[in-house]
Amino acid sequence: MNTFETNIFKKSIMHVGEMASGAKLTVPVYSFESQQICPQLKIPNVYIQANMHGAEVQGNAVIFQLLELLKNCDIRSNITLVPNANPVACNHKNGEYTLGRFDPITGVNWNRMYHFDETVIEPFAKKNIEASEEEIRASFQQLLLDQIEQKLDHNIWGLTTGQQIAYQLQRMAHQADLVLDLHTGPISSKHLYCPEYAKASACYFDIPHTIFIPHDFDGAMDEATFCPWWSLQQAYNKLGRNFVMGEGIFAKESFTVELGSQEQIDLAVAQEDALGILSYLQYKGVVANNSNQDFLPQKMTRYACYLKDYKALYSPMGGMIDYLAEFGKPLPAGEPLARILRMDNYGDGDPLHNVSLDREVIPILHFASASVNQGTELYKVFSEYFEI
Amino acid sequence: MNTFETNIFKKSIMHVGEMASGAKLTVPVYSFESQQICPQLKIPNVYIQANMHGAEVQGNAVIFQLLELLKNCDIRSNITLVPNANPVACNHKNGEYTLGRFDPITGVNWNRMYHFDETVIEPFAKKNIEASEEEIRASFQQLLLDQIEQKLDHNIWGLTTGQQIAYQLQRMAHQADLVLDLHTGPISSKHLYCPEYAKASACYFDIPHTIFIPHDFDGAMDEATFCPWWSLQQAYNKLGRNFVMGEGIFAKESFTVELGSQEQIDLAVAQEDALGILSYLQYKGVVANNSNQDFLPQKMTRYACYLKDYKALYSPMGGMIDYLAEFGKPLPAGEPLARILRMDNYGDGDPLHNVSLDREVIPILHFASASVNQGTELYKVFSEYFEI
Amino acid sequence: MNTFETNIFKKSIMHVGEMASGAKLTVPVYSFESQQICPQLKIPNVYIQANMHGAEVQGNAVIFQLLELLKNCDIRSNITLVPNANPVACNHKNGEYTLGRFDPITGVNWNRMYHFDETVIEPFAKKNIEASEEEIRASFQQLLLDQIEQKLDHNIWGLTTGQQIAYQLQRMAHQADLVLDLHTGPISSKHLYCPEYAKASACYFDIPHTIFIPHDFDGAMDEATFCPWWSLQQAYNKLGRNFVMGEGIFAKESFTVELGSQEQIDLAVAQEDALGILSYLQYKGVVANNSNQDFLPQKMTRYACYLKDYKALYSPMGGMIDYLAEFGKPLPAGEPLARILRMDNYGDGDPLHNVSLDREVIPILHFASASVNQGTELYKVFSEYFEI
Amino acid sequence: MNTFETNIFKKSIMHVGEMASGAKLTVPVYSFESQQICPQLKIPNVYIQANMHGAEVQGNAVIFQLLELLKNCDIRSNITLVPNANPVACNHKNGEYTLGRFDPITGVNWNRMYHFDETVIEPFAKKNIEASEEEIRASFQQLLLDQIEQKLDHNIWGLTTGQQIAYQLQRMAHQADLVLDLHTGPISSKHLYCPEYAKASACYFDIPHTIFIPHDFDGAMDEATFCPWWSLQQAYNKLGRNFVMGEGIFAKESFTVELGSQEQIDLAVAQEDALGILSYLQYKGVVANNSNQDFLPQKMTRYACYLKDYKALYSPMGGMIDYLAEFGKPLPAGEPLARILRMDNYGDGDPLHNVSLDREVIPILHFASASVNQGTELYKVFSEYFEI
Repeated sequence: MNTFETNIFKKSIMHVGEMASGAKLTVPVYSFESQQICPQLKIPNVYIQANMHGAEVQGNAVIFQLLELLKNCDIRSNITLVPNANPVACNHKNGEYTLGRFDPITGVNWNRMYHFDETVIEPFAKKNIEASEEEIRASFQQLLLDQIEQKLDHNIWGLTTGQQIAYQLQRMAHQADLVLDLHTGPISSKHLYCPEYAKASACYFDIPHTIFIPHDFDGAMDEATFCPWWSLQQAYNKLGRNFVMGEGIFAKESFTVELGSQEQIDLAVAQEDALGILSYLQYKGVVANNSNQDFLPQKMTRYACYLKDYKALYSPMGGMIDYLAEFGKPLPAGEPLARILRMDNYGDGDPLHNVSLDREVIPILHFASASVNQGTELYKVFSEYFEI
Repeated sequence: MNTFETNIFKKSIMHVGEMASGAKLTVPVYSFESQQICPQLKIPNVYIQANMHGAEVQGNAVIFQLLELLKNCDIRSNITLVPNANPVACNHKNGEYTLGRFDPITGVNWNRMYHFDETVIEPFAKKNIEASEEEIRASFQQLLLDQIEQKLDHNIWGLTTGQQIAYQLQRMAHQADLVLDLHTGPISSKHLYCPEYAKASACYFDIPHTIFIPHDFDGAMDEATFCPWWSLQQAYNKLGRNFVMGEGIFAKESFTVELGSQEQIDLAVAQEDALGILSYLQYKGVVANNSNQDFLPQKMTRYACYLKDYKALYSPMGGMIDYLAEFGKPLPAGEPLARILRMDNYGDGDPLHNVSLDREVIPILHFASASVNQGTELYKVFSEYFEI
Repeated sequence: MNTFETNIFKKSIMHVGEMASGAKLTVPVYSFESQQICPQLKIPNVYIQANMHGAEVQGNAVIFQLLELLKNCDIRSNITLVPNANPVACNHKNGEYTLGRFDPITGVNWNRMYHFDETVIEPFAKKNIEASEEEIRASFQQLLLDQIEQKLDHNIWGLTTGQQIAYQLQRMAHQADLVLDLHTGPISSKHLYCPEYAKASACYFDIPHTIFIPHDFDGAMDEATFCPWWSLQQAYNKLGRNFVMGEGIFAKESFTVELGSQEQIDLAVAQEDALGILSYLQYKGVVANNSNQDFLPQKMTRYACYLKDYKALYSPMGGMIDYLAEFGKPLPAGEPLARILRMDNYGDGDPLHNVSLDREVIPILHFASASVNQGTELYKVFSEYFEI
Repeated sequence: MNTFETNIFKKSIMHVGEMASGAKLTVPVYSFESQQICPQLKIPNVYIQANMHGAEVQGNAVIFQLLELLKNCDIRSNITLVPNANPVACNHKNGEYTLGRFDPITGVNWNRMYHFDETVIEPFAKKNIEASEEEIRASFQQLLLDQIEQKLDHNIWGLTTGQQIAYQLQRMAHQADLVLDLHTGPISSKHLYCPEYAKASACYFDIPHTIFIPHDFDGAMDEATFCPWWSLQQAYNKLGRNFVMGEGIFAKESFTVELGSQEQIDLAVAQEDALGILSYLQYKGVVANNSNQDFLPQKMTRYACYLKDYKALYSPMGGMIDYLAEFGKPLPAGEPLARILRMDNYGDGDPLHNVSLDREVIPILHFASASVNQGTELYKVFSEYFEI
């Protein structure tokens, strides 16, 4: 019988910035420190954040449901949960909508500002070529933390608004082994960005579409947390000390979880999403299953594609879009994804233009508005895919 | 058997403005001039426009479907159709969405810039107290057109960007007897703004919710076309010559038709919307029914409320909204309209706050985004209502 | 000899709203309560606020300098100073600039949301027709405060974001007799909006251009504070009890002070502006002059015009503007205010278009950007003017 | 005596995109084809564009003045001039200002979308290792054009709005030898981005500050035009065939010319700027000097710095900035660049915060608004510099 107490998540407030009026920007941090940590078992620590992009709010509701569910779980490691991760972004309205993908002053994507300096990897591996695994793990993690600290510890030139936020989040993520960054698409099915080496984990989430991403660093949270370890493992292998990525001290995993559409909160759906995450965490040993609860992944067809085959389709003309293609279902070659209405062409041109592709694809998401310019991203699709 | 030819709508291009680059802003105008006009029958002329607010695009699709359907109708009067009425608004993106309710430079609502100078009414009635009805109709219409012409015919101070557009549209609307301005809500059920005196017409649209508006002028297209005639009828009655609003030369009607949610094009739904409009036009004699087609309103429960009872509910706090209330269905007092998620309150406050009202209401529309500030308009509801 | 102590302004924090993240929006309030208040002397109390429009920041610097200067003044009444009055507006960036004139969600001008319900005036006058002057003053002030309190004391429908802020500011303003709302133009000379009845005061500010405004209420702070009293005085006069606006208990004055251009802070200029305000306050008896300091208005040519003659000139075309006319200096008829560059016309049209007027005017301000659409407000000018 | 005719620049209209309303976006192109081209002399062809960033409009005025001045010059090669290069950007207003640095939908900087595929370089050099210089020049230019053509010639996935524009501009730039991209800073002194190998040319512009940039490609127009040739030269040198960058067929130069502040048109200053450009063009032989006119650079102190020493200073706090430091003049260590006003700190904190640096710098530009968040770029400065 389950007799453990309700788990208490400690709340702290992180100061991430200041607006022109002097208004302080803060982020709440919920953390659980396991009393049962057993060093031999090496249960991975967990970091989950939500709402780095301002309009992508559903992750906050998922963290709410996770907190509610985790209260009564048998937790075996440390878990940190950060909702409302980017108050600048989530508070920025233009008209009724939230302008949340990029800094409104500079245009820089909020999820491209994390830090990774690849030049430190090889020297570290060389210097620590003989170190024990645990020594490597500890000192490399410290190196990553030191680098962030150095950035945050104001050099004379300062940091951008986004770096200020990103580095403080990254400092927490670097202390975890499993990192989930909760996002959404514009109008979108659920999908998962998963590092290629972590394929096995993709089936433990209740998400039907997975994009396998390579190890290149492009500034995002998921990359910022697994790329350093991937690079380190590569460096060691090159030096003749062989490690396997995803195992032992390299058992690091990091996912961007796309929960559906932006600009929406649905607490009922959030509970399902939370259960899917608990399924993954149970698989990793973070929560123990017991007679009361056993978090198992749902049975579903899961499609995957490689990042290079995850394609954006840009509108061939300006106009107004009737989006037709259903998400998550293979669409035969030649079938219309969308119709473009061009009333200015009525009477002396073509008022309706069908958009289709010459190959079968699985539509994953489409643009958030019916009005598009020539060159606006209409759809993102799996252009090659396979079941997993 | 129906033997008349396919109707031809003449297309013309109206120049409504210029951007900083010199780019010309144009609006397509589709007009049908009936050959069968019989002066004795006094079949009303029709003006329909769409997309004055940039994000409210579905009206363009409705005009597309109207043009397709009208091709084969027996049309008995003149019809003018204007899609894409406001190219400045519909082309203005901030992030993925269209910032379309107001001029992005000034903040002025695009649908509050039409013209009506009430001071001309009384002098006109006095001067034309003895005139025949047809003389009154013709010279008052000319007066309205002259006023617009005078505004457009550049005085030395110029016009605002929005007036430039609005006055050119209004010039066309003043030449019609029935005016439909096609809009949408943010996320919304279908609803209709109908002048109180034109109640009888509300049941000929396939729209389940009607708001009856009084005769006050606040700058909108519907008011701009019926208020002058309403004021004129009042002035005559005051002078002892009695007319009834909505009859004879005062048979003027003007509606704002809210087609559902913004940022969406759905050509299938647009066809239904077009059929509902044809039902109204057939009722008014504009299209004749015949053995092939008979446009009748759908059977549905139709609720109405007075404008004073059409209430906006503003958010009592900042937060993220899980909208719960269904549109168009009476919601009992005390039942939640929405839940507000406030993750910053988790652990030491109330992370979920229910929003409810102390009376039964019918929710009609809600805000377009889950993220709201304190004071953002959450819902609009019928607070008192009745069946029609 | 001046022997009084340094004056202490009490600081308090006013909570004016909440953003979606839960971030609290606060406004600092600095108030001085005079110990020397002598009821017989009836020295007017003062309320000064700044930065209601987000980009109009210079007033904050002026309040800084006022606070510094007032430390050592002999203050004879109560003074309340409110910088950063609208944190929503001043924190809202689109690109590098502050989108500050209107609520970014609704487009409503932040300075058109104050409250005045004219229907209470006549009943009040009738009811208090026999009351003593002091009774009238006290109970009418209480009525105004009660009305605001009732609005703020959440009715079930709530308030808009802007009303939430405006009403809290107005509550403080209603407790003062002299109200200054510190604004700026876009790119602008200094100018002053002054009620017609308060003409005499205009020459005590160091501001060369004054616009005399009538008593109509249009939602702005200055109107919201003097219109109720103006209407009350009118109502009494109508009932046969004669009062003079601007005298006795009607010695209420309210100004919108336009300090120059937006998007700029200049602490040196702010000190000059503060001295000009002190000159007005000394004239009103709020600060006493003494051997150490005597705040006198600068000698300058002061031009004024009536609001009806303060004209906006809208651009006759889209294009790029070389603003030529100097502010504050009469520009002869026919002289160019600006040249419009239209490179798309080079070679086959007119690449340069001069904008001029057929009458002499004094240019007061111009648009903030070189790029304009057809219909953008280019200049505001005094079209008829006189020296004061 | 100069007896040649007035030069005629041919105007053509380039179609670069379509907005949602169907509005066509066009760019005017002015081109002069020299009749005097003498192949032996190899006079470089010229491409100049302006206003790729929407608010940076002064380059349009400079192209106007260049067209006026070039009418009467003795032109020895082909010149193409493109004002209003980006109509999407220059027409996009938020409030009064132009949101012009990035695509308002995606946030991507308009000047980071040009194309360069480095992988083609080495194979080209290997394949053409024996080719004549003229053959290399011609076939490499053709390769660059083919690559652009292939991109523009719609692959099935389409192009982004910005690529659509950028590639069409780049197609013209690739046909020139000297490329000038006319920009401005926010509030800024004049400065020049110059490739390190083209140092000698920097003194022929009338611009007092030059930033020497290395050969890395980051998506900008200047890089997109010189990097391919730089890489090719490197590839040849590696293969043992030595060329010198900047000479012979590698006599390619490309500059970003920052003309001062954004949001401003000044035709008088534009003429000076045009004369500076003619000085450079005469130095390169593009226009011949003669008895009538001799375009020589102005005498001035010219400072330069390397890109790595061109530093941005980010605001250490939110607040309102009184910018103090003068542009273009060495500022001693410790002297304030700016003061930050924080009225919320008045009375119980530090309302004024000085921003200074621990080293001497030359301030070049500052942010466009007085209101900044923590982390907003305040200033850009030369942190190490030298005279040239």
